[in-house]
Amino acid sequence: MGGNAMTSADGRAAPADQIAAIARAAEPIADVVATGAEVVITHGNGPQVGNLLVKNELAASVVPPVPLDWCGAQTQGTIGFMLLDAVERSLAARGVARPVAALVTRTRVDPGDPRFTEPTKPIGRYLPEAEARVMMDHGQVWQDRGEKGWRRVVASPEPLEILDAPSVTALLAAGFVVVAAGGGGVPVVRGEDGIVRGVEAVIDKDLSAALLGRAIGASVLVIATDVTAAMLNFGTDRVEQVDAVTVARMRQLEAEGHFASGSMGPKVDAACRFVEAGGERAVITSLDRIAEGVAGRGGTIVTAGDAVQPSTVTGR
Amino acid sequence: MGGNAMTSADGRAAPADQIAAIARAAEPIADVVATGAEVVITHGNGPQVGNLLVKNELAASVVPPVPLDWCGAQTQGTIGFMLLDAVERSLAARGVARPVAALVTRTRVDPGDPRFTEPTKPIGRYLPEAEARVMMDHGQVWQDRGEKGWRRVVASPEPLEILDAPSVTALLAAGFVVVAAGGGGVPVVRGEDGIVRGVEAVIDKDLSAALLGRAIGASVLVIATDVTAAMLNFGTDRVEQVDAVTVARMRQLEAEGHFASGSMGPKVDAACRFVEAGGERAVITSLDRIAEGVAGRGGTIVTAGDAVQPSTVTGR
Repeated sequence: MGGNAMTSADGRAAPADQIAAIARAAEPIADVVATGAEVVITHGNGPQVGNLLVKNELAASVVPPVPLDWCGAQTQGTIGFMLLDAVERSLAARGVARPVAALVTRTRVDPGDPRFTEPTKPIGRYLPEAEARVMMDHGQVWQDRGEKGWRRVVASPEPLEILDAPSVTALLAAGFVVVAAGGGGVPVVRGEDGIVRGVEAVIDKDLSAALLGRAIGASVLVIATDVTAAMLNFGTDRVEQVDAVTVARMRQLEAEGHFASGSMGPKVDAACRFVEAGGERAVITSLDRIAEGVAGRGGTIVTAGDAVQPSTVTGR
Repeated sequence: MGGNAMTSADGRAAPADQIAAIARAAEPIADVVATGAEVVITHGNGPQVGNLLVKNELAASVVPPVPLDWCGAQTQGTIGFMLLDAVERSLAARGVARPVAALVTRTRVDPGDPRFTEPTKPIGRYLPEAEARVMMDHGQVWQDRGEKGWRRVVASPEPLEILDAPSVTALLAAGFVVVAAGGGGVPVVRGEDGIVRGVEAVIDKDLSAALLGRAIGASVLVIATDVTAAMLNFGTDRVEQVDAVTVARMRQLEAEGHFASGSMGPKVDAACRFVEAGGERAVITSLDRIAEGVAGRGGTIVTAGDAVQPSTVTGR
């Protein structure tokens, strides 16, 4: 689930707002667990990291700022904590006796990933040019975003390996619902000396989820978002919902430019990757409909497609 | 291990300092793991939470401050992350193939604990009275600490239950070295409605470690600190090191006032509680000597004491 699903409607990420939003998000998750499914929950952290970066900036003269990998680890702590409380509560309300655990999770990336030299992912708040230039003097990359001001951009390298996938597998085997790979996982690189170190980057949570899903042998990947399905011709009067679709067809639609790079694009890519790597199906749907999605009864359902579907698209 | 063991000598908790300190701390821990022992690591977080509180204060006009339970969860993320990297590295250097996992861990306290009405634990930085009064207007309790200024005091309630002990047990059974209950665990209360919620408090990490140790059936509790053992007449010319000692004798020495309430006191109390609750032995020693301590060859070793020791104290 996305980081925005964990904030209030106005985008603020005050603790009480986050707790309330996660309590709502836990309900459909508990519905899935109640079916007897083994469930791993991953989550975004964009708004939460945004807040941490502001704190870094405003306290920098007193307290050493922490790098992006630490910000990610911090949000795994807080969001993991909230999810433990919330999912346990929703399970208890359903009489489901399943324990929940939250793991600190690292995702390995390639230090030679070209995205490190050409950072593109905007994070944090907009600043006036003068303030942005101060941060640029500290080595950060900021871009002029027009009327709103300047914004920091960071590398979003390709996730290669979920280093802590074995912990997830062990907890699943012991019957736990597991929270893992929050924020895409804490980004790390493995040096030539074999040593793992954190690195300043953010990792796409959907791509990490697809990778984790395959690492633990998950059969279904559900990408919970704020729309009921992926759409074609989005933003036009010819909008169409993508229902059951083969991964080949989904890649074709993607190549035709139907899915925006900053929002639906990575979700579609993640869904395709999961199925291409051997996953049974990937579902893109809204958070409140994930139980139907897992059951194969709603949302965009991507499969390998040996069983040809009569129609991949319905009008709306 | 203490939070101070994870900062540089000058007490700063800059990321690079913390990473270096934890890399050093991981070495003796890996020595213990290399003996074949099943190991759970808990850690303090005082300096780290201190930094987070400063950020809360300085960014409060832009970003909603987060409560103490969140600060604790944040440090479980960052310190857990660092320990994963560092312990894996030290194990690899020894050719030991043991995976490591870090858990978000909650500790339940009693909402009726009298320490909530009489907070005593000082946290964060000293501030001038005027700035302290601003925070007091926001409901915080601050005390005049003389020349250094005013300091916030918070509740440090009794830890009653490590809610996530079952996750620790599951990971241990699967062969993992486990990082858990960092900072004493994220403090939570269970309301009359059965719902678990975070609460503004800090929990003593040594007392939590004793509780966790018994919950998971640990035979040995090692409290790693910066002295080789608990001392009698500390700070006088009659200082004596406590070696092997029965828990009854240790309680007697404690009652005689040998152990300072803010430093060695909780460690001695935790060691005694662990043994009183059925633990085989508790060891208080310096971080670099924990392998000897686990083997029963150094530090203050507290046992139930059915086998009477000829001498519990040696000169130094």
